[in-house]
Amino acid sequence: MTEDFRKMWEGLGLNMKRHDELLTALGQFYEGIYLSQTNRPKGMEYFDFVVSEVHGLRIKELLDRKKEGGSVVGTFCVYVPDEIITALNGISVGLCGGAQFSIPDAEEVLPRSICPLIKSAFGFKLGMICPYFESADFLVGETTCDGKKKTWELLNEHIPIYVMETPNTKSDEAKKLWLAEVTKFKDFMEKKTGNKVTADKLNESIKITNARRKALERLYELRKSNPLPISGKDALLISQIAFYDDPPRFTAKVNELCDELKERVEKGIGVFDKKTPRLMISGTPMPVPNWKIHHIAETSGAAIAVEETCTGTRYFTQPEIPENLKTVDEQIQAIAERYLKINCACFTPNDERVADVLSIAKKYDVAAVIYYVLQFCHNYNIEYVKIEKALKENNIPVVRIESDYGEEDIEQVKTRIQGLLEMVS
Amino acid sequence: MTEDFRKMWEGLGLNMKRHDELLTALGQFYEGIYLSQTNRPKGMEYFDFVVSEVHGLRIKELLDRKKEGGSVVGTFCVYVPDEIITALNGISVGLCGGAQFSIPDAEEVLPRSICPLIKSAFGFKLGMICPYFESADFLVGETTCDGKKKTWELLNEHIPIYVMETPNTKSDEAKKLWLAEVTKFKDFMEKKTGNKVTADKLNESIKITNARRKALERLYELRKSNPLPISGKDALLISQIAFYDDPPRFTAKVNELCDELKERVEKGIGVFDKKTPRLMISGTPMPVPNWKIHHIAETSGAAIAVEETCTGTRYFTQPEIPENLKTVDEQIQAIAERYLKINCACFTPNDERVADVLSIAKKYDVAAVIYYVLQFCHNYNIEYVKIEKALKENNIPVVRIESDYGEEDIEQVKTRIQGLLEMVS
Repeated sequence: MTEDFRKMWEGLGLNMKRHDELLTALGQFYEGIYLSQTNRPKGMEYFDFVVSEVHGLRIKELLDRKKEGGSVVGTFCVYVPDEIITALNGISVGLCGGAQFSIPDAEEVLPRSICPLIKSAFGFKLGMICPYFESADFLVGETTCDGKKKTWELLNEHIPIYVMETPNTKSDEAKKLWLAEVTKFKDFMEKKTGNKVTADKLNESIKITNARRKALERLYELRKSNPLPISGKDALLISQIAFYDDPPRFTAKVNELCDELKERVEKGIGVFDKKTPRLMISGTPMPVPNWKIHHIAETSGAAIAVEETCTGTRYFTQPEIPENLKTVDEQIQAIAERYLKINCACFTPNDERVADVLSIAKKYDVAAVIYYVLQFCHNYNIEYVKIEKALKENNIPVVRIESDYGEEDIEQVKTRIQGLLEMVS
Repeated sequence: MTEDFRKMWEGLGLNMKRHDELLTALGQFYEGIYLSQTNRPKGMEYFDFVVSEVHGLRIKELLDRKKEGGSVVGTFCVYVPDEIITALNGISVGLCGGAQFSIPDAEEVLPRSICPLIKSAFGFKLGMICPYFESADFLVGETTCDGKKKTWELLNEHIPIYVMETPNTKSDEAKKLWLAEVTKFKDFMEKKTGNKVTADKLNESIKITNARRKALERLYELRKSNPLPISGKDALLISQIAFYDDPPRFTAKVNELCDELKERVEKGIGVFDKKTPRLMISGTPMPVPNWKIHHIAETSGAAIAVEETCTGTRYFTQPEIPENLKTVDEQIQAIAERYLKINCACFTPNDERVADVLSIAKKYDVAAVIYYVLQFCHNYNIEYVKIEKALKENNIPVVRIESDYGEEDIEQVKTRIQGLLEMVS
């Protein structure tokens, strides 16, 4: 099988030497961070398997789907509506952008002082290291931050990228612009795939996407229990896998896992001692394999109970899209409305996010918050000022950690998290 | 007179100790950088005077205008339409944001890793150091970059700030959004000032603003000559003063100066030797007193012939707004169209700017380009990749300088500019 995969990767034009290095590093990394955990739920076996096959079986599935007429669409943001992609026989994959490995490739072109997520993704394409980039027919970007907005122009020289304009506010005019953008995206996808959206197809894909979000919501709901039935690290992994696994299979596996977790909760079984301080992480997304903060925290005597991030609650907490709308226009309208409810720091004002953070902190009964900022992310970095104020007014300690994917600051991050834990113990 | 000014500053609530320190520092700084120049045009005396009275007479004028019912409106961006402010008896002033002096004040709240312009402006308000902030009735911000967009939310806690949503693209939908924003801004200004816009008033203010831009255009036109009749440093100062001086007076004084420069050109009189390498600066704006790059370059054997910045060509090169439109709707439409023609790096795509840079480089016959980026400005930093490529294809050497307002990197900047000069000599 491995031989077949090698042929597949060669066929995709990957830089085989770099890709081999990446897989070796990733395997060791995963073993050290994930497989070293004790008392993991049995249901995590599936997700371990997914990770072990992330560049193998899953890529083969994508290529098989392409042979049958499907399109692989790479995305970078929870603002890109999967419903439209799925309804047009597209397979949406969240693209690689969580590794230090590809950053030197990017820095040959991009400035160093931009966010590691952008550099990592750009470097994966430039270095021909990521089979997802090489399987994608095209990418869909957005304008949620300056760094991404301007990098898409450069990435477009290497792979076609369609850009959706996310507005800067949620005013009535901005809502109109966004609705027009979602409509234009549907038109673009129809043209690109040669398929036509129908209300039936769209209702089907709305159901699939709703179900995936509902499964994640169920998983997070179970994390409100004490002791925690699952580690934050494992929960993060599941959220990350949501972006590239086959949606119905993923949903089924998350629900299976949730059945097991429910039993654990009923029996009072947890992965950490009941007295372990529960922390929330709030801030920027963490794509695979960015497990840094979770790993440091959970090996420093804390448990991560919840993430208020795009690879956390921001992914699934908006109201469900109705599944029985009669016309494509109504559906597009509902999709546009749902997505604009995500409270990303790219909007101004964004007081809804401050309210979200407070409410999540309370619901998950956390002792403190780690505010996580990918280095040079102005939106989340500046929004911290308001979040910090609100948390302090509610007597919830918080520490801001601005970090990249490197290992240089691990000890420093550890010290700061330990400092936070001392405040709450 | 000085005693009266002290009373005025006290009345504004300035932190007198810090303000005294600022004025002393600014005076010495100006003397060293500006008054040390030789062979300056006589017409610069007015602008020297303006600088010497920047916190004195001009503030008194603003306060006098307020007594007569005028409103002082602070702005930060060439995207805010002065025409609307002026038509409603408002006085638009570009706010202070070019000094290291106020940055420590800002860094008590804002993250360090954002652009010095934003930190400087925010610090001036927080530290109560700038009489313009304290004279302003309210501010008008925009969403041209992540840093500003999010900082306005925090600044709003100290002084009311109205935010115009500038879009991320120039698509038809974005044009609609911008037109709506300009209309909303007019409505807001009417409400805030209690005045009503009429077509006559708006035509008058369009004429005033057009004339100011035309005067600057004339000044820049004269800089196409060799030898240069005026230093880059002096031309920059004039552009900077455009943002806060009384518009008709400013226009008259620039035109007077231009008459003198025209004579110089006819007689072949210049401030630098004819063989001095002519450079262009392209990139981010330089508000008073950010004269760093110009000063280093012009004391290192170069002459700055032109600035493709918001304190340069981006301020005035768009087509004139018609001065005889019959209805406010038509005028607002024309204003919205004119402003959306500014090619700021905040737009995607923004290939028009690449074309602008090339065309300006040729028209001003420059030997090389200094691409100037305020530290942590992602938009201009990333757009450099495209600009660099275009310049190199046209055999125009370029160096990217990312810098803040501090003095630490002066020697390094000097070395890099000298390196550029070696390439062209």
